[in-house]
Amino acid sequence: MTKPRVVKTVSRMQSISRDAKRAGKKIACVPTMGYLHDGHLALVRAAKKLGDIVVATIFVNPTQFGPKEDLARYPRDFRGDMAKLASAGTDYVYYPAASEMYPENYQTYINVEKASRGLCAAFRPGHFRGVATVVAKLFNIVQPDAAVFGNKDFQQLKVIAQMVKDLNFPIRIVGLETVREKDGLAMSSRNAYLSGEDRRNAPSLSRALFAARKMVGQGERNAAKLIKKARAVIRAVGSPRIEYIEVRDCETLEPVSRIEKPCQMLLAVWQGKTRLIDNIRLNPKRS
Amino acid sequence: MTKPRVVKTVSRMQSISRDAKRAGKKIACVPTMGYLHDGHLALVRAAKKLGDIVVATIFVNPTQFGPKEDLARYPRDFRGDMAKLASAGTDYVYYPAASEMYPENYQTYINVEKASRGLCAAFRPGHFRGVATVVAKLFNIVQPDAAVFGNKDFQQLKVIAQMVKDLNFPIRIVGLETVREKDGLAMSSRNAYLSGEDRRNAPSLSRALFAARKMVGQGERNAAKLIKKARAVIRAVGSPRIEYIEVRDCETLEPVSRIEKPCQMLLAVWQGKTRLIDNIRLNPKRS
Repeated sequence: MTKPRVVKTVSRMQSISRDAKRAGKKIACVPTMGYLHDGHLALVRAAKKLGDIVVATIFVNPTQFGPKEDLARYPRDFRGDMAKLASAGTDYVYYPAASEMYPENYQTYINVEKASRGLCAAFRPGHFRGVATVVAKLFNIVQPDAAVFGNKDFQQLKVIAQMVKDLNFPIRIVGLETVREKDGLAMSSRNAYLSGEDRRNAPSLSRALFAARKMVGQGERNAAKLIKKARAVIRAVGSPRIEYIEVRDCETLEPVSRIEKPCQMLLAVWQGKTRLIDNIRLNPKRS
Repeated sequence: MTKPRVVKTVSRMQSISRDAKRAGKKIACVPTMGYLHDGHLALVRAAKKLGDIVVATIFVNPTQFGPKEDLARYPRDFRGDMAKLASAGTDYVYYPAASEMYPENYQTYINVEKASRGLCAAFRPGHFRGVATVVAKLFNIVQPDAAVFGNKDFQQLKVIAQMVKDLNFPIRIVGLETVREKDGLAMSSRNAYLSGEDRRNAPSLSRALFAARKMVGQGERNAAKLIKKARAVIRAVGSPRIEYIEVRDCETLEPVSRIEKPCQMLLAVWQGKTRLIDNIRLNPKRS
């Protein structure tokens, strides 16, 4: 277990990547906002299989936060993150300052139009523009051959995959199964905000998704009925505020009314002052 | 003089570039829309000094044309272009179909916000969004170490340079002096549209710019007076329709009222049914 090397500037990271690629090495990248959990470490372990060199990035990206969102209080723990990344076998950690990523006069943004409509985008205007932009920057800085993301942020994964395809980045995008706590709660850095009753009620999100998946297994194909069930499961405990529960085509993210091919149920729910998201595959064939 | 190899697909071009870079070769790229003239060939010759391998691209990019613009009638001459590119020593010509560049469900666009305001952007909404997007794609496809553009499209050069800086493309952008006909007309593929009186009147654009530069040399620092003079020179012949004549800071493209540091005078003028652009450096120190 060697300590990953920390890189703070664009030029140094590009120079490391250029030398590695000239030496014929493959680079796999795991972009994160830090405050790492076991879900992130699963991404790093997958990255180790995809590349000779693993670069994790830690950057709490201001352009993907709305003006009333949690940018200032987003949890941070660089020392803890470094220890975890070392244990998972990370080679480099790209950890830039905001001024390195967005210097004065910064003015370029990437929009992935269709994939950035509805779902989280309806409640977080500009969020996926910020995500697409920073990920494109990180790709140009790290120059990876592959990059690994979690399925938990499913719409984000779709936005990034579409951007990579559309802009012809020569990068393989890999989405990894959501890692969950024992009680089913999807791991998320934002779970650190949860305490007491909110934490106890939070697993209702995954219970709702599991219930919908079970109904599909039993033959239910009507999306509205699945959503009604999920809504009831979440409403059964505490006083959640449901932003959305939707069923979408898992490839195109188009809304679907019947589960005829693999779909995704996605939801966003506030437990107290914490916004949580989760999603699950609904596969009529596998059922 | 060997014939350049023509490459039509993203995957083949990326494979060629990957192999070249692994072999330690530098790639220089000259993006064009074809119908090449001596200005383009000057770019190729400059590219040969910047890289071991020169890749010219020929693609009439639909996303940078407005619905009422000249996409359909934009001049094309692939055979002639190939002969010229061969004579200038081009190694590869990337020449994709529109469907290769913009497949079904294409949805990603890049905006360079400040540099894409005013000047041509005021008359060609969406133009620089199309330019930035296709150039980012070409950069990901060709993977050049350097790319060469003409100063004639000065705002375009600024938009591209800003995008490269903002998105951290590891690519050197080089702008080359405008190449002119003997009578001063800036070389442009669109000059093919000009005939008769329009062609005879077209050199008034460069005469206007030269007159302004001369005034700066004689001590004039007032941008409004320079613009007034340029306007008078252009209005003296035919019935031109002036879209804009402006003086901007040549780094930031901010409007300026006094020539205190290097500035650029830029203009767009219709001669008959042909829209022409041109620009010139106004340098108070060199004067």
